This record gives sequence, C-alpha cells and structure tokens, in this order.
Amino acid sequence: MKISARNALKGTVKAIDVGAVNTEVVVEVAPGVEITAVITKSSAERLDLSVGKEAYAVVKASDVMMAID
Amino acid sequence: MKISARNALKGTVKAIDVGAVNTEVVVEVAPGVEITAVITKSSAERLDLSVGKEAYAVVKASDVMMAID
Amino acid sequence: MKISARNALKGTVKAIDVGAVNTEVVVEVAPGVEITAVITKSSAERLDLSVGKEAYAVVKASDVMMAID
Amino acid sequence: MKISARNALKGTVKAIDVGAVNTEVVVEVAPGVEITAVITKSSAERLDLSVGKEAYAVVKASDVMMAID
Amino acid sequence: MKISARNALKGTVKAIDVGAVNTEVVVEVAPGVEITAVITKSSAERLDLSVGKEAYAVVKASDVMMAID
Amino acid sequence: MKISARNALKGTVKAIDVGAVNTEVVVEVAPGVEITAVITKSSAERLDLSVGKEAYAVVKASDVMMAID
Repeated sequence: MKISARNALKGTVKAIDVGAVNTEVVVEVAPGVEITAVITKSSAERLDLSVGKEAYAVVKASDVMMAID
Repeated sequence: MKISARNALKGTVKAIDVGAVNTEVVVEVAPGVEITAVITKSSAERLDLSVGKEAYAVVKASDVMMAID
Repeated sequence: MKISARNALKGTVKAIDVGAVNTEVVVEVAPGVEITAVITKSSAERLDLSVGKEAYAVVKASDVMMAID
Repeated sequence: MKISARNALKGTVKAIDVGAVNTEVVVEVAPGVEITAVITKSSAERLDLSVGKEAYAVVKASDVMMAID
Repeated sequence: MKISARNALKGTVKAIDVGAVNTEVVVEVAPGVEITAVITKSSAERLDLSVGKEAYAVVKASDVMMAID
Repeated sequence: MKISARNALKGTVKAIDVGAVNTEVVVEVAPGVEITAVITKSSAERLDLSVGKEAYAVVKASDVMMAID
C-alpha cells in the first residue's frame, strides 16, 4: 500500500509500552533522533512490532507543527 | 513554552511553499531525513520561517502511525 | 507498506478538487457512503489519483469521533 | 448540533472495548465496512454507546489520508 | 447530533478568511479568548458561517496538547 | 519554544485522570470554559502538571471543527 501521508521515516523500534487500549512505540529514525507513536494495542499486535524491528513512523503533514527557539 | 507533544525534532528548514490559507514547510531533522508540515500561512509568518533557519518539527504522539514493509 | 492505522476503507475516487497547497478527494467506500479527504496537492499527485480510480481512505482510530442523533 | 466535519457515516455499533482512559468503538457503516474509533471513556459513557445501537463515525477531512495498492 | 468530542466551546465568529480549499474561522469563546479553526471551504459554506454568528469550536481531546511557561 | 499551533489558551488545571498510557487533563481557560486534553502519561509527568497549576491548552487550527445549533 502506498499512502498519501507525506512523512514515512524509516527506523528501528527502540521501546514498546503496552496499555489497556493503546500502546506507545518509540522508533529511532536517525542516530539520536527518536519519534514516539501512540497506536491502538491491536494495531501494534497486527504489525507484530518488537524492539529491534525495522519500522516506519508515519505522519500526515497536517499533523506536524513547527516551532522555533 | 514547554509543550506536552512528545516529538520535537530539531532541524533546518529546506523549503517553504505558500498557499492561500496554508503553507507547506519541509525541515531536515537528520542528514537525508525530512519532515513536511502544513501549517497556516499566518503561523509560518508569525514564526518568521525561512529556508536555512533552525526549527523544530513538533508532532503529538497520538498523530504518529507505525508501518512496516 | 502495512500501516497501523485501523481504518483503510477501499473505494472509488468520485471527485478531486485541487487547491494551492491542499487537494480535496472524495472516495465512495460503499454505495452511497462517501468519505472526503484533504491531503497535500503533492501527495495527490504522487499517488496519481484520478476520478474512477480505486483507492483507500485511511484514518487513524484516534481521529474518529462517535455521534448519535 | 450541525458540525463542520465533512464525514459523518451512519452505522451500527459492533463492538466496544473499554480501557482506563480510552474506549475503542467499532461501527459498521455498510455491510462489511467497519470504522474503529478511539474516544475517551467518559465520552463513550456520555453518548451511552452500546453494541447494536445506531451511531455515526465522524471524521474531519484533514484527518483522512488516501492510499493505493 | 450529539458528538463524542469532549470540547465544544460556544462563542461568536470574529473573522473568516476563505482560501481555495480551506477556510480559516476565528471564534471568541470568552472575552479575549479566541480559537482559530481551519475547515474546508465547503463545510464553512454548509454551516453558513458569518462574522457575528454564534458557533461552537469543537476539538477532540486527543488533539489537545498541554504546555507550561 | 515558540510553536506554530494557532491556539494556546492559558488556564488553570482543574482535574487530572491518569491511565496506563494516557492521562486526561482538564484546564479552565475562562470562568466556566474548560478544555479537556488526552496526552501521554509521560508527557503529563514531564510537565509536572497538577491541579491548580497554570497551563496552556494548545491546539493546531486544523484540528478544530466548527458547529452550529
């Protein structure tokens, strides 16, 4: 499947924290650059995500904000 | 201001494309790793974003999806 | 690519309306059931979307609200 | 209340899974076409959602992505 | 329609700025407290929004971030 | 940090409800006007949010919908 979301950053799963409905996944997309996702527990299971696995962090452009110091 | 959004990736603005209401901003957060944001034109102006400027791409964890090949 | 987004509804593109930065796409996922997406113009071009083409409307579960009459 | 969200798909609640803060709701909007929502537990209670009840899945157009095979 | 979105703040439309696909709407929900929405142009037209009109700014709780000084 | 999100409403934390992965925070931005946020538990801890503390509810304009009676 090819998706319209502008951002699909390839990386490695660093941590997974499972809750009742949601699961938090941390993926390192470059050395020292991590992105945290909160997805449903069933989605995490369906993708069979585990620490060390290659995965993409996918973000729609309209969900990205900009900030400056 | 310190924000709850889990993801604030520091980078350099690579491109800005201005529309009627929205503006698209591309920021490079690591060599070859780019994130695209669509924000309101007035927000881009308020932050005074320009190509080459340092900026953060900020994303709430619940807006990040995971994908695998 | 296999994505964590819980909702990927297959359908047919019914209409496309192109703006300066964004494009609005209407996809029919069942007879009389339509979903409208606003994506960046460049994403619509990258997917080569056109009226009559098969496509999926993809939505993260945390972006869906419920309502009753 | 009449809302700006472009997508309000009428259907029947098929499943409800209650967590600590969030609740997952599955609604069938056409035969075989299901949409999953994650809403706060208190919102699910306020709407008095239960399996078999008629309900709408509501999605803002800017939260819908497109994908192709 | 009764919606699951936790936040529905009643106010008065202060400004409307129409783009090609999107429209920006500013609503004052308390004296000096304004919320800006970007919705599709067709949604703004469907609601017949105009300056001075009463309207609600509706936000899903998972789309709200917290920040401190 | 100065963020592009158009909406940053200052208020007082009224309630905090902690779940396994997520935490729900209610902030009063004007007398009788409350906004509810669902953020990750670790973000709530990082901001050291507590009832009575001053905080901002931050919302991207593209995540705000409009509604009328």
